[in-house]
Amino acid sequence: MKVVRSDDHLKHFPKGELAGGLFVRPFECPERWQHIMDRLGTRGFQDHVEPADLDIGPVRQIHDAGFLEFLETSWDRWVAEGYEGEILATCFPARRMQVRKPEQIDGLVGYYALAVETAITSGTWEAAQASAAIAQTAQRIVAGGARSAFALCRPPGHHAAKDMYGGYCFLNNAAIAAQMFLNDGAGRVAILDPDFHHGNGTQDIFYDREDVLFLSLHGAPEHAFPHFLGYEDETGAGKGEGFTANYAMPPGTGYDKWGSAMDDAIKRIEAYSPDALVVSLGVDTFERDPISFFKLKSDDFTDYGGRIAKLKLPTLFCMEGGYAVEEIGVNTVNVLEGFENG
Amino acid sequence: MKVVRSDDHLKHFPKGELAGGLFVRPFECPERWQHIMDRLGTRGFQDHVEPADLDIGPVRQIHDAGFLEFLETSWDRWVAEGYEGEILATCFPARRMQVRKPEQIDGLVGYYALAVETAITSGTWEAAQASAAIAQTAQRIVAGGARSAFALCRPPGHHAAKDMYGGYCFLNNAAIAAQMFLNDGAGRVAILDPDFHHGNGTQDIFYDREDVLFLSLHGAPEHAFPHFLGYEDETGAGKGEGFTANYAMPPGTGYDKWGSAMDDAIKRIEAYSPDALVVSLGVDTFERDPISFFKLKSDDFTDYGGRIAKLKLPTLFCMEGGYAVEEIGVNTVNVLEGFENG
Repeated sequence: MKVVRSDDHLKHFPKGELAGGLFVRPFECPERWQHIMDRLGTRGFQDHVEPADLDIGPVRQIHDAGFLEFLETSWDRWVAEGYEGEILATCFPARRMQVRKPEQIDGLVGYYALAVETAITSGTWEAAQASAAIAQTAQRIVAGGARSAFALCRPPGHHAAKDMYGGYCFLNNAAIAAQMFLNDGAGRVAILDPDFHHGNGTQDIFYDREDVLFLSLHGAPEHAFPHFLGYEDETGAGKGEGFTANYAMPPGTGYDKWGSAMDDAIKRIEAYSPDALVVSLGVDTFERDPISFFKLKSDDFTDYGGRIAKLKLPTLFCMEGGYAVEEIGVNTVNVLEGFENG
Repeated sequence: MKVVRSDDHLKHFPKGELAGGLFVRPFECPERWQHIMDRLGTRGFQDHVEPADLDIGPVRQIHDAGFLEFLETSWDRWVAEGYEGEILATCFPARRMQVRKPEQIDGLVGYYALAVETAITSGTWEAAQASAAIAQTAQRIVAGGARSAFALCRPPGHHAAKDMYGGYCFLNNAAIAAQMFLNDGAGRVAILDPDFHHGNGTQDIFYDREDVLFLSLHGAPEHAFPHFLGYEDETGAGKGEGFTANYAMPPGTGYDKWGSAMDDAIKRIEAYSPDALVVSLGVDTFERDPISFFKLKSDDFTDYGGRIAKLKLPTLFCMEGGYAVEEIGVNTVNVLEGFENG
């Protein structure tokens, strides 16, 4: 399996993440990437590829033009305002408020943010573009005939909606790649999201579409970020009705229950019969993840990688979350190995 | 004019306010209160009254029961979660997300917050209750026959909506007092809000009601907090249609234009012919206010106090914003003096 990677992820690493009322060192940190790289090397995944330049076309198919302009220009506007910290939202269109786009930078940040933990820094836009380019290059590898590829995306993407960033995500790498499969002629694409957190951004992007089946296994929104999407009764809208599936599970969920949800998701993918599969690969379902509450063990990752392989679909893995940094390499590569041996 | 005040405001003073991506010393600070007290003393406003105990009944008429329970219990729940900072929202029901109430404390905070700059601390609920009690006691003084009273509320209230806090506000003191005038038999009450910021909470509370006329003069939402409410085309809904008036003004607005808006607001109050007037008295329209952009001079405050007096209505002043701390006393008392001499 080819691995697409780039050092450009280093351009994004905020000084602080807002958590528990304090600035803490961001859980979404560069060591995550390094631990995965190290483990890939150890386990023989040594065919590494640099991404080609970003193709902005598919990005524009997924994301709103004003949002992309915001991501590109927000840092300069923030600095011009005289602010000395990183970009963090302080206001937002709350319930019963207007969703008109403000002009002043604080208002604009609040308009485009969907959460507040995630800072935009001077290098964020460059890193986000590189991350999307990684997903694009990996997609081309699979579209070119490879059984699979691993896009080592950082920053991750699945929380990024059509026109909102947050949850460490800016551009939705998996959604962009799925769109590219369609652009290449696929009739249907499935996105399977086993990251601990609900893939609210991906769901938002494809909610009214039937050409992308989106399935997310995640911590129930009552208990887990992003808290305001991912209920099981969200099943799509309009033409997309029935093409979104949410498996929302409570604190303490172990592999027995989680694996059953995965089996069900796999059955639904089989029934959908897509031309390609994109996996939003987060490994924060691990039992010792510091910000999650599922109880998967390292071997479970190998196991479900094997189950995904049984679909026998061209498969693109896009890296998403996972914050137990020492084990993130093991668990991520276990999925890939399980897949290769499945 | 009697002044209702309490030292209990000291129980609320967050260590940090999120501004420009950093924690800064909150602009809404105890010295604001002290400067007003000092100036009141200097200028002969020496009839000071402690508030009676809070009457929770009118508070429950204005605010949602779940919201009040949240304000009362959130600190203990936050501490029990192991968090070491003050309570700050990190997520919220963003566009196209669900507004179902989560169970976990971070989700709950995001559900009830309308902005992120404002921390809840161990003493916030006590201070917020005392501030509402101040407005209630001042209301009773006016309802009892006094021409006017000054409720030296801190924390302020006008951003607090039916079920959301933010913008330094937790309970909507002015709205609670207005409701009490109605409870006492008034048929109509007007709330005039000359604070620099839009009184989004007060508007939200009375938007579909005809028994409260709400008028706000403020920085246009495109440019000023709270950014997502306060457009001039927001005029009320249902029975309340026509009973909300917004005067949204651009950066740099001086007293010529502002005073014309005030005159127009006063004419509308006159036409409405209310039984009582509540003034949400913010003095952050001052030219040197650090977080605002109007250009009023200290004498202008005296002038508009006089214009309000011309209405010859029983008038309750509730303190709201104003962050140029050295001048906040002068400007606040100028309004009261202008009123008394008007």
